Amino acid sequence: MSPRARPAPAPVRVGLIGFGTIGTGVVKVLRAHRAEIARRVGRPIEIAAIADLDLTTDRGVPPAPARLTRDAQSLIDDPELAIVIELIGGYEPARRLVLAAIAAGKDVVTANKALLAVHGEEIVAAAEQRGVRLGFEASVGGGIPILRTLKEGLAGDRTVAVHGIVNGTCNHILTTMTREGRPFADVLADAQRLGLAEADPSTDVDGIDSAHKLALLTTLAFGVAPRFKDIPTEGIRHVDAVDIAFARELGYTIKLLAIAKDEGDGIEARVHPTMIPNGHLLADVGGNFNAIFVRGVALGPTMYYGQGAGSMPTATAVVADLIAAARDRAIGAAVRVPPWGVPQAQLRRATIRPLAALESEYYLRFMALDRPGVLARIAGVLGGHDISIASVIQRERHARGPVPIVIRTHRALERNVGRALAAIDRLPVVRGRPVSIRIEERLE
Amino acid sequence: MSPRARPAPAPVRVGLIGFGTIGTGVVKVLRAHRAEIARRVGRPIEIAAIADLDLTTDRGVPPAPARLTRDAQSLIDDPELAIVIELIGGYEPARRLVLAAIAAGKDVVTANKALLAVHGEEIVAAAEQRGVRLGFEASVGGGIPILRTLKEGLAGDRTVAVHGIVNGTCNHILTTMTREGRPFADVLADAQRLGLAEADPSTDVDGIDSAHKLALLTTLAFGVAPRFKDIPTEGIRHVDAVDIAFARELGYTIKLLAIAKDEGDGIEARVHPTMIPNGHLLADVGGNFNAIFVRGVALGPTMYYGQGAGSMPTATAVVADLIAAARDRAIGAAVRVPPWGVPQAQLRRATIRPLAALESEYYLRFMALDRPGVLARIAGVLGGHDISIASVIQRERHARGPVPIVIRTHRALERNVGRALAAIDRLPVVRGRPVSIRIEERLE
Repeated sequence: MSPRARPAPAPVRVGLIGFGTIGTGVVKVLRAHRAEIARRVGRPIEIAAIADLDLTTDRGVPPAPARLTRDAQSLIDDPELAIVIELIGGYEPARRLVLAAIAAGKDVVTANKALLAVHGEEIVAAAEQRGVRLGFEASVGGGIPILRTLKEGLAGDRTVAVHGIVNGTCNHILTTMTREGRPFADVLADAQRLGLAEADPSTDVDGIDSAHKLALLTTLAFGVAPRFKDIPTEGIRHVDAVDIAFARELGYTIKLLAIAKDEGDGIEARVHPTMIPNGHLLADVGGNFNAIFVRGVALGPTMYYGQGAGSMPTATAVVADLIAAARDRAIGAAVRVPPWGVPQAQLRRATIRPLAALESEYYLRFMALDRPGVLARIAGVLGGHDISIASVIQRERHARGPVPIVIRTHRALERNVGRALAAIDRLPVVRGRPVSIRIEERLE
Repeated sequence: MSPRARPAPAPVRVGLIGFGTIGTGVVKVLRAHRAEIARRVGRPIEIAAIADLDLTTDRGVPPAPARLTRDAQSLIDDPELAIVIELIGGYEPARRLVLAAIAAGKDVVTANKALLAVHGEEIVAAAEQRGVRLGFEASVGGGIPILRTLKEGLAGDRTVAVHGIVNGTCNHILTTMTREGRPFADVLADAQRLGLAEADPSTDVDGIDSAHKLALLTTLAFGVAPRFKDIPTEGIRHVDAVDIAFARELGYTIKLLAIAKDEGDGIEARVHPTMIPNGHLLADVGGNFNAIFVRGVALGPTMYYGQGAGSMPTATAVVADLIAAARDRAIGAAVRVPPWGVPQAQLRRATIRPLAALESEYYLRFMALDRPGVLARIAGVLGGHDISIASVIQRERHARGPVPIVIRTHRALERNVGRALAAIDRLPVVRGRPVSIRIEERLE
């Protein structure tokens, strides 16, 4: 695309470890946009070597001219490669390979949220020590450039809250349940058939993947270092179609949200099904899309929306990190922005507040026998635990079996809600386990 | 916030030209977030001098310790200042001062979309030549980091379409007209009283501000250099409450959209009131908020939402540019990303397609006498111009005066629509000027 012929500068050579879904996308994107990328960087970016255990499956794109090998270590040992991409996922051998690549002085780009959420401190320490870049844009929000935004775009503000829909599988399942009124297990089975959910879906549907991403978002948004295992995490297995229907009646949509708030004296970070007001932009984020809603002190709310997964969208985030590293290298620059946005030693220490100390509005549903005075007894227990009622739905009357009593509370303490539900569960007229879902009213 | 005491590094000294709404916000943000910014940059950023013609008005934040002067040139001549912020707006003396600051070897940060849309080529040439940074994140989308996103976050993809709500005043007016069913003039007068519209609102309501921003978005998104004066621009003065109501009935919301598409063989860029399907995220962007919806080849759709104006939000974008420049300077780096994302000499030449060649769906409204055969005559003219009808609303019957006939067309050529409307306007049964509003169906 250059207007005049000039000697082509040497390409930036990259090694790719993991030639799966995203890796294939990376090879495709780099080839399809080779000229545009060379215009941006000043030289082409080229995958020179690919390591994968499977050398035979047809990925729809030939590895050549890249050298294809089963030996990932050979990429790390190759002095021609400036950057190594890790896309094998999981903890090991990803951790070992990333650390080895850093030790060899290579910039590393990865999409591995689990690795960074759990071993981020060790890996970032190594990268800072060695003076190499560590890019992990693809680990959160797929192709949405949310990490770069937190580190650079919003660097002038102080971010105080993040509400994210960061797992496309869960959002697809909840959107479908909402639209079609079908139960979780059915919709999950369909999603598995369609390739939208894994055969073992627990990392997604139990909220673990969202918690991994939330750990990273929390660090980048607030400049703190939370411990991943301190993040309270609930998935969507227990979301019942009946609660989705009541939510709609009350003006809410149920989403699996990853929520982080900087309260000054403590950090709130949690993943759970959440009712959010219809009319809020997050409530309209459907299907397998992701969105991250960010509140800053000076900026107010901003939102970032896009495809949170998939081969090509995620590949664009990997390639954006490659371009950033290659742009730095083109001018011989040192590391400009540390992996967490601030040097790791400068992260504030902060503990995540225990969930028991959370204050929130709650949606509660009890299945109770349809007898006079039942609501009064439930309300009495709630009142006795300092929980005040905002509204009640008790529609079916004169039924034989238990009927639902739905209560929306005002702001209450999670600890009190837990105790009240346990007490209500012991009432003889109440059948089945009480259901509680947190409501997030103050999203704007 | 540093865990250990260490000698404080010298601050990055900045000169601010223009101590108005945004300038005041910049001073506030830099002071409020001084410690956080120092953690990010490795040293504080400090406004050392401020130039404004008005030295007396109380801005709610004292200029001191910055030196306050009426002499902008003295900031450019001050060798202590590494970066100059231009926030006076307009063409002159902004252009002269920005060029002088560049010539003096200073990085420049500006929010001046008009200057860059019209004189961008000259200014970027000067900045590239002198090897200084030119940041203008604040010029589009207020605090939304959309320019940085196009230059860096989406650098791995090829962007093919941008649909932006980029003028908060127009979006506020249209949102209020939609919600309250009131006419444009009324709502504008209210907005002026509330400070949401200027005393002379023409830059906003005539779409000029949106066109300035679209010129910049088009360059950054596609790597092309459109000529600002080639961008067809229509404002919202002629949007009638009755068309907003019919739009709703047809399932659309009217927004002032800035639209750019890279069609390969040509660029489409235009600003005009547009009907977009309800249910699309852009349709829900209310009040004075902005949002930019971007489509990439590999990434698919992404959206960026936030406050497009206002002192503090816009100030955060200015400060993000300051941080980026200061981060570069901290490691002594050369310019890493050129102002347009690619070197100006590498921008593709592309002309903006004439509007007459546009293909779009159209909303048409005619006021016609309520006589038999009127619709047939109108339909006949449309058909004769190769315009096919998707739906018709003709509700009031047996009226005395003219009644509205509303037609939604299938995809048609703008040139044909113009000719058909002129022909229909000449029909004796048609009263008043026909109304046409473009519909943007293919937003996903």
